[in-house]
This record gives sequence, structure tokens and C-alpha cells, in this order.
Amino acid sequence: RRFCSRRATTDGLLFRQMFESESSTYTYLLADAETKDAVLIDPVLETIDRDLKLINELGLNLTVAVNTHCHADHITSTGLMKKRVVGLKSAISKFSGASADIHLSEGDKISFGKHYLTVRDTPGHTDGCMTLVSNDQRMAFTGDALLIRGCGRTDFQQGCPKRLYESVHQKIFTLPEHCLIYPAHDYTGRMVSTVGEERMFNPRLTKSLEEFVKIMNNLNLPKPAKIDISVPANLVCGLHEV
Amino acid sequence: RRFCSRRATTDGLLFRQMFESESSTYTYLLADAETKDAVLIDPVLETIDRDLKLINELGLNLTVAVNTHCHADHITSTGLMKKRVVGLKSAISKFSGASADIHLSEGDKISFGKHYLTVRDTPGHTDGCMTLVSNDQRMAFTGDALLIRGCGRTDFQQGCPKRLYESVHQKIFTLPEHCLIYPAHDYTGRMVSTVGEERMFNPRLTKSLEEFVKIMNNLNLPKPAKIDISVPANLVCGLHEV
Ligand SMILES: [Fe+2]
Ligand SMILES: [Fe+2]
Repeated sequence: RRFCSRRATTDGLLFRQMFESESSTYTYLLADAETKDAVLIDPVLETIDRDLKLINELGLNLTVAVNTHCHADHITSTGLMKKRVVGLKSAISKFSGASADIHLSEGDKISFGKHYLTVRDTPGHTDGCMTLVSNDQRMAFTGDALLIRGCGRTDFQQGCPKRLYESVHQKIFTLPEHCLIYPAHDYTGRMVSTVGEERMFNPRLTKSLEEFVKIMNNLNLPKPAKIDISVPANLVCGLHEV
Repeated sequence: RRFCSRRATTDGLLFRQMFESESSTYTYLLADAETKDAVLIDPVLETIDRDLKLINELGLNLTVAVNTHCHADHITSTGLMKKRVVGLKSAISKFSGASADIHLSEGDKISFGKHYLTVRDTPGHTDGCMTLVSNDQRMAFTGDALLIRGCGRTDFQQGCPKRLYESVHQKIFTLPEHCLIYPAHDYTGRMVSTVGEERMFNPRLTKSLEEFVKIMNNLNLPKPAKIDISVPANLVCGLHEV
């Protein structure tokens, strides 16, 4: 039963995964089905209308919009969303260097109704990367730290392969093997994995630290198309004066 | 709790939704986590390697590959998959006009381990459209009969708006309101809905039959780019001699 991917059976948890196709980003909506309090993870500027329409239809009270890190490939909608949702607070890691209403670090909780997400610092892709773990440890939102059969690059934005390797092994691979992995991106239509699967099949993170560092230092990827726009924008919740 | 979207809590059900970006098609993998017997719904030719790799990694025994209907927008991989997976059987509606190992109709079951999917005939987009409902009625794979806040078109392939309206109202909207709707497509990054949501917010199917028919007869959509290749190919499980 290592790879069983049943969704969180937590009572009264509303969950939605959504995709933004230009940057291949996943946005996650979680809510308490009773109280209607909701959290949005990694919302993208291009899909703000879709996301707010669904939130309204479902009658949710969006209280926190959180970024797993300061993204380089798309602009977050958290800043604009704050202008459109009364009382909404933005959140990001205190190690991100970005402004937000809430600065998070290891062990902090984001509560919504009777549910919460716990912050695990997982730096390496950037200094301020977090993994958000559901209270029942059945779901982990890993941002760009751990992708499905991959991981975020480490060649810009304070990237450090050794730190990333340690983050994944110490903070993500130590979760229960059935814990579902929900990444910030996938480029081939996969939507979810599990800790057990990634421990066994991740082509990079199953390697030794030395091999991993060598792989990551030799990817020779082009610079992300939008990095010079996205990073400055995301340092201020997407609300830049360009 | 109308819109609670908890995934099937059925014990030991492995479930994966995957996306093919060229035709915006969702492929679904379901398996019994104990016996490893698996069913694949609407697999696409372009993503056959991705799908088979995952099935192999998970150690699954793929027994049935089923199409919800004879697709016009992409070529199915079921024929090619049969050549690569020993014992695999293809399945489709007996009203589709397509060849396959198994021809299905109302009430038929597709079993995998202790789980099964039940066929509901939902014609209207095509004559041979089926909705596949999980044994616990927590998930319905609606093909192109019901899409998220939409529905399949009715202007080719035996399309009939009145039949589609009746199919959705009689066979899908009668499912429990928390039943998750997994469609064959979405074009804006949404992955799942519920019966309750669509009953309330579907902009077409909340209308009267008369209004629905008028809407569907005035969409003025272009012909699908691949219809002249896809339909003949899909009538023979994607294995055409073009
Ligand atoms: Fe990133
Ligand atoms: Fe179709």
C-alpha cells in the first residue's frame, strides 16, 4: 500500500487543485467545510478571476493567501487579491526577503477553521522556501523544493543544491510514506505524488548528496523568461510599480 | 457542506488524475491498492509513455482501458497500449460504433480488485457517451457529457442537445451532491467539481431545456482541428492504417 493515493480523509476539508498553464503552476485551495474559512496557496495573477469566482461560488471566507516562496516564473496574485477580498492577509517565509502581512518560519501554523497547515522550512531552491503540511500529515505542499520526479533548480535566487538535498531528506522524506505531495509545478500533466513514490523513484533525490550536487550544477538551464519581472514583483506581493 | 470536495475515502483506492495539454484531456488511473488491478479512463496517445511508466512504477496490473466515448479531439492510446500491456482489454460503449474488446451499456460494471465502476449511459454529445460512477458514488467520470461549468458540444457526431440535457439531469444530477465530477476536459485549469456545484452553477444545465437547446444550437464553434483524423482512428482503438 506504499503508493496509495487516497486524498485526505480529514472530515470536512474542502480541497481543490488548479492549474495555470502559462507558468505550469498549481494553485491550491483548502477550506473548512463548516466554518468556510479558506487558505489559498501559490495563486497566480493570470488566474485571479477564476480563483475568486470559485471562492465566491463556494461561499468561502478567504483569510490567508500564502506563497511557498518568492517565485521567479510567474507573478503572484496575493497583492491584487488583498485589494479585492476584505480582511485577506498575505503570507510568505520570513527568509524570503519579501514583504507580506504574515512572515512564517518552521513550526508556524496557518489555521482555517478546525484545520491547519504547519510550516517546514525547506530552503535550497531559494532561502525562503517552505513546505506546508496538513494537520493530519496526509498532504504536503512542497512548492519548488520537491517536484514530482524532480525538484526546483538551484542556479539562481540563493539556490544551493546541498541545502535543497538536506531539506528534502530531513523535512519531506521524513513524512509518512502515504503523504501526498502537491508541488508548485508540473510540466507533464502529473498532479500528485506521494512521499513513498518520491523516496523510491525521484531520479535526483534518490542519489547521494555528491551525485545530486553534480546533477544540479550541470543542468545548464536557460534563465526563466520572466525572472526579471517576477522576482521584484513578488517581493511586494505582486504589487510592483512597473 | 454542499461543496465539500473530499476525495473518495474508500479504503485502498489508488487514484490519479493526469492532463494531456494539447487536447486538454484528463486521463484517470484507478487501482485497488491491495490487488494492484487497475483501470485507465480516456488515455491519450501522446501521453502513453508517461502513463505506462507510472503504472509500472506503482506495480499495477492494468486490466481495462476504457474510453468514455469516441473522442473527436485526440487519438486514444488504448490500441497501442494493448500491444504493450499483456492481457489489457479495451472498452467503450456499445452505442459508440467503435470496435473494442468490451462493449458496455447501462448498469455494466468494470471491476478492479474489490472496486468497480458502474456504467450510466449519458448520450447527447455522442450516442455512445458513458458516465462511469465509482461503487461508493463519490466519483463520477462524466466524459464530455458534463464538464466543469460546461458540457460537451452537440453539433457533430450524433450530437443532440435534448438528449444531453436529459442525460445530465437524469443520470448525473441524480447522484449525491458531494459526488465529485471528473470530466474528460477542462480548458481553464480546473480539475474537479461536485454534483452540488454543477446543479447550482453550471451556466448551461441550470437553464430550462428550451433555453439549453437554444444555447447549444448557437455556439457556432469551429470544427475540432483533429476530428477527421481522430474519429476514424478512435473507432478502432486508435489503431488506424492511415
Ligand atoms: Fe520557484
Ligand atoms: Fe468528445
